Amino acid sequence: MMQEPRLALIGFGNVGQGFTRILRDRGDDIAQRFGVRFRIVAVCDLLKGSVYNSAGLSPGDLLASIEAHGDLSGVTASETSWDALATIERSDADALVEISYTDLETGEPALTHIKAALGRGMHVVTTNKGPVALFYPALRKLAAENDVRIGLEGTVLSGTPALRLGLDVLNAASIRSVEGIFNGTTNYILTRMEQGATYAEALAEAQDKGYAEADPTGDVEGHDAAGKVVILSNVLMDAPITIADVEREGITGLTPEDIEAARAEGKRWKLIGRVARTAQGVSASVKPVMLPVEHPLASVSGATNAILYETEVLGSVTLSGPGAGREETGYALLSDLLAIYT
Amino acid sequence: MMQEPRLALIGFGNVGQGFTRILRDRGDDIAQRFGVRFRIVAVCDLLKGSVYNSAGLSPGDLLASIEAHGDLSGVTASETSWDALATIERSDADALVEISYTDLETGEPALTHIKAALGRGMHVVTTNKGPVALFYPALRKLAAENDVRIGLEGTVLSGTPALRLGLDVLNAASIRSVEGIFNGTTNYILTRMEQGATYAEALAEAQDKGYAEADPTGDVEGHDAAGKVVILSNVLMDAPITIADVEREGITGLTPEDIEAARAEGKRWKLIGRVARTAQGVSASVKPVMLPVEHPLASVSGATNAILYETEVLGSVTLSGPGAGREETGYALLSDLLAIYT
Repeated sequence: MMQEPRLALIGFGNVGQGFTRILRDRGDDIAQRFGVRFRIVAVCDLLKGSVYNSAGLSPGDLLASIEAHGDLSGVTASETSWDALATIERSDADALVEISYTDLETGEPALTHIKAALGRGMHVVTTNKGPVALFYPALRKLAAENDVRIGLEGTVLSGTPALRLGLDVLNAASIRSVEGIFNGTTNYILTRMEQGATYAEALAEAQDKGYAEADPTGDVEGHDAAGKVVILSNVLMDAPITIADVEREGITGLTPEDIEAARAEGKRWKLIGRVARTAQGVSASVKPVMLPVEHPLASVSGATNAILYETEVLGSVTLSGPGAGREETGYALLSDLLAIYT
Repeated sequence: MMQEPRLALIGFGNVGQGFTRILRDRGDDIAQRFGVRFRIVAVCDLLKGSVYNSAGLSPGDLLASIEAHGDLSGVTASETSWDALATIERSDADALVEISYTDLETGEPALTHIKAALGRGMHVVTTNKGPVALFYPALRKLAAENDVRIGLEGTVLSGTPALRLGLDVLNAASIRSVEGIFNGTTNYILTRMEQGATYAEALAEAQDKGYAEADPTGDVEGHDAAGKVVILSNVLMDAPITIADVEREGITGLTPEDIEAARAEGKRWKLIGRVARTAQGVSASVKPVMLPVEHPLASVSGATNAILYETEVLGSVTLSGPGAGREETGYALLSDLLAIYT
């Protein structure tokens, strides 16, 4: 029996388009292999418009409209005026795909969207770090009360299954600590500095390639990585810390001399996020660390991300893969949805 | 509601003892967290004896008897004369833990044990490469016909979830190829040769540490890695190749000059197993490859193993972790059992 879950997408930026592209290109294959055909019935984006069609919106049409008009005005829809909450309340969707913009201070507006959906008995999948970093325990409780699930694989390492590895597989091996390279922009900058660039040159390149934003503070001062450390602590360690609990230092203080000094010792600087169990609970930090080149995280270069689990039974287990990207992050949503529906 | 699956262990060597140690030390925690209390009701080992107790055998007693006597004679049991097949047929177990010795030519005796168990409607978990490398399609079919499952995570990379990563997470990302370092003994030897040892010295050290057997042929000529490549092809690529289809070359031909020549080019020799989709099906190989030091597999050193998935959606995703070890491999069995029962 083919399942046909109805999806409402709130937000239709890079990640939403990447997810939609996967459904366009692989929807038939997924239906055949997993017995699930995902049907987008509503898309609502502050800038690009709002469309709803009970019979489903074609992924190809959604993408073609963005391509042709930069918005959703080219999509045939029965409703085009719903805001995010109306979409959640009236679209009769089975699952919310929450991919609006990230706010690490308030979690809004995603927080309101997620609560509304969970409260109505909808599953939620999201790549939005804000609400998860800030309110995971409350959201998990609300999901359990409504007998639905929250998928959040894409909040850390995009489609690379960093959370799944810990939650589904290593959870019985007693996780002592989780650390990793959780920000591709800073890792790219550090890699380029090792190759001889100054910090300013490397940052400009990263901005040029679209890795770093015009205001790079969130990346280079470690805020983004700190948000991910909070998520890891909440999700994997059951330790409800907040972002204020994370000791944080960015990479802006690193000089070419520091890079060279590390090299002379057979080491490399990496911006390492870490959460570890302690007698008092957990300790959490984001800071530049000099790693010996043989360390499993030392050879992770460029925009690649990685996570290292230290466990009692298995010792170290390390996973590396893409940390960002449209389809890469969109895949996290698909992966979460498949976990819910298969 | 606590589930209490009854387990029959066929084989009680290193892996069986490692698994039993995990149940002894973590059984309460697992029961509390997962709602499953695994109960060993039978253990049958050709050399160490056979014990059955319908009410369950204490993991601590089993291990204490091995410690004190080198066999199971110190365990209180209602039956002590059953052979492997009698144990499977008469122990009323829900799942077979097949961890007898590996034979990559016939798959026996594990093949007979697994077929008997599946035919009786028992789940099977195994770390035994022989039957899986040789007969996976038939075993999968038999399991499906009897509505039970086969867990085989431990056949590749011990408890590191190499197969799970592909089967549960990356399967929708279109896997193009799988390659990796699948044999810790040869990787240890190559690592030591890079540090200046000759092949003969490095092999002697590996034997001394218990990584390599007295007759190291299976490892150094690539047979062990080839068996794993066959498993990966069957399980992940749905391509039922056999060991004869694997192009195979070991590491015995590598000289200190070869190692040095690689270093001069900024490269490292690794014994790489690989299976890749082709227009005609798959190609499979095990052979020494010179990898640039920045390659994700180049920095995997010592007895660590690693697997690299090349996918259409996510690009490269790499997992590294232990490739062997008592508890590390025992954990694969636990992980498979938890996947079946939770």
